[in-house]
Amino acid sequence: MGSYHITVLKGDGIGPDVVTEAMGVLECVGKKYGHDFVFNEKLAGGCAYDAYGEPLPEETLEACKNSDAILLGAVGGPKWDHLPANLRPEAGALLKLRSSLGLYANLRPAIIHKALSDASPIKPEIIGDSLDILVVRELTGGIYFGERGYREGKHGEEAYDVEAYSEFEIKRIAVQAFEAAMKRNKHVTSIDKANVLESSKLWRRTVTEVAKDYPEVELDHMYVDNAAMQLVRNPKHFDVIVTSNIFGDIISDEASQITGSIGMLPSASLADGAFGMYEPIHGSAPDIAGKDMANPIATILSAAMLLKFSFGLVAESQAIEDAVTKVLDAGYRTPDIYSEGTKKIGTKEMGKRICDAI
Amino acid sequence: MGSYHITVLKGDGIGPDVVTEAMGVLECVGKKYGHDFVFNEKLAGGCAYDAYGEPLPEETLEACKNSDAILLGAVGGPKWDHLPANLRPEAGALLKLRSSLGLYANLRPAIIHKALSDASPIKPEIIGDSLDILVVRELTGGIYFGERGYREGKHGEEAYDVEAYSEFEIKRIAVQAFEAAMKRNKHVTSIDKANVLESSKLWRRTVTEVAKDYPEVELDHMYVDNAAMQLVRNPKHFDVIVTSNIFGDIISDEASQITGSIGMLPSASLADGAFGMYEPIHGSAPDIAGKDMANPIATILSAAMLLKFSFGLVAESQAIEDAVTKVLDAGYRTPDIYSEGTKKIGTKEMGKRICDAI
Ligand SMILES: CC(C)[C@H](C(=O)O)[C@@H](O)C(=O)O
Ligand SMILES: CC(C)[C@H](C(=O)O)[C@@H](O)C(=O)O
Repeated sequence: MGSYHITVLKGDGIGPDVVTEAMGVLECVGKKYGHDFVFNEKLAGGCAYDAYGEPLPEETLEACKNSDAILLGAVGGPKWDHLPANLRPEAGALLKLRSSLGLYANLRPAIIHKALSDASPIKPEIIGDSLDILVVRELTGGIYFGERGYREGKHGEEAYDVEAYSEFEIKRIAVQAFEAAMKRNKHVTSIDKANVLESSKLWRRTVTEVAKDYPEVELDHMYVDNAAMQLVRNPKHFDVIVTSNIFGDIISDEASQITGSIGMLPSASLADGAFGMYEPIHGSAPDIAGKDMANPIATILSAAMLLKFSFGLVAESQAIEDAVTKVLDAGYRTPDIYSEGTKKIGTKEMGKRICDAI
Repeated sequence: MGSYHITVLKGDGIGPDVVTEAMGVLECVGKKYGHDFVFNEKLAGGCAYDAYGEPLPEETLEACKNSDAILLGAVGGPKWDHLPANLRPEAGALLKLRSSLGLYANLRPAIIHKALSDASPIKPEIIGDSLDILVVRELTGGIYFGERGYREGKHGEEAYDVEAYSEFEIKRIAVQAFEAAMKRNKHVTSIDKANVLESSKLWRRTVTEVAKDYPEVELDHMYVDNAAMQLVRNPKHFDVIVTSNIFGDIISDEASQITGSIGMLPSASLADGAFGMYEPIHGSAPDIAGKDMANPIATILSAAMLLKFSFGLVAESQAIEDAVTKVLDAGYRTPDIYSEGTKKIGTKEMGKRICDAI
């Protein structure tokens, strides 16, 4: 019987609602497959600021470092928007977790479940009844972590931010994308702005180099402006997308929205080795926090990614995904994905039904 | 009788096809309203590189500076992609024209004509039968024109690009957006990444300052990742969008694609005063160049913007727009916007029909 240590950061808003259900699902999996998941709950985000005056207490970071994986709910909310950036949940907790833990590879599947294909804002003749894109976003470099500040410019004082990438950083994220593509449809689209940016030129050259080690994978390059168009016009073009931190922020959110159900989408942020942080892509939605209304599926599917990527428990991960499909196929829906003719249920019942289906 | 000097840069690929029709339409307008439009044709882009070894010859730039406005077709194509950036049509001609002529305000309407509302990839219940967004993109600053190069970083040599904005630059583009909003639905959405970037923080503060001079205009701020989502999910939220050069590149292309007919969309790039450069947003499409297949409407509508913004000829501008609507309502379509039950015609016939409708 394996014993696995998970640091749990429920976070703010609906974070606790959805993480509680994901923990429940992990326990069901543990029981069925004979694993012991040891949860260590810590504070991060606005709740940590409220308790300790800092969004990422040292104790929380230490616990993360000493565990096998992190399960995160959501952090932030208008309550903390007045704070200086380094004390806000986003920059103060999320960005700091990413950089301190070396979580350089952000994997964001944009998947349309057959049962929810109606939800897409894109016409059915374009989207069909399913879609499966994986966005691989660089997460610890680029303009998110370059110097910034004020300086004298040609129109007086100016605020600046530096975008920068080394070959090392580009190579390791490209490898993640090609490795993922090998297990999928063997097609990588690299997104950059190489007609303008020096960092994008290096990006394009380096990705092209890495591609030589994956002769079976087809690689194409797309400018970010064109990619923003093609995602709307022809989303089926894409299998795996690999791109920088800032372009990935924009493109992955656009891809998510094309599925029409962001309450369903998980993410993994991986370091070298098996360590990773797993979280739903949706926000903390404070208006519905604690009301048994939030959709826990994104977090439950994040737990499934955790099992697969950090623990290598592939069958267990698949069992969760299958259970989610089963419950959706049976017509159960939280309010965000409800449509006529389906059965509206709350956060807890959704969690329980997914457990039962495992 | 007014006399107006227009530098005409037909450019590459379908550029000559579409600009020729727009010139024809301007001549029709001139005849009807008693204006003398004097055209001075010059080379810019790949064609200029082929003739002179440089994409923007001094003679072309001088002609631009000595005219009242510029009408541009499209530049670039795979033929010149192997060249170093400064010799390529995009950076060597387009970006240089923008910066040399101080064209800091890029206005890009994303409009769905009722006759073409079927073309949108977005579902009708979201898009309705029309859409009218104006993207105001900063065009001579930001990461497009900051320093770039190589330097030592923490992972060895890295390529870098600097994003920078001064209050002066932000203020003048914000003023353009608010002025435009006053003539429209009085709603400005400013797009930034102020939760991460210093330049975005200054952007947000400065736009908020400018808004105080326009108490009738509603201002909201959106992070660029969220904006990329909302454009797909709820495009009707937007009236005027104002954003930086790089975010504007991405967001304006996404907005264009949502209309489903980028062959229809014009743009204006304005300097202080009345000077401006006008061009369709589509590319040079070399595969259909010279085949009487390109849609000239985007360029014809660019000429309409030229009349309004650079010459103050509002009625004449409106006459072109009305003529386009009339021809579309009569069912005429170039191949790119053709659908069953409409009449397929070529580039030249489209130009002629629009002339006749004026
Ligand atoms: C909250 C914000 C700093 C963050 C980002 O930009 O990376 C978020 O948008 C995300 O994508 O996780
Ligand atoms: C060709 C390229 C340099 C240009 C840009 O990025 O500005 C184009 O995409 C545009 O939007 O006009």
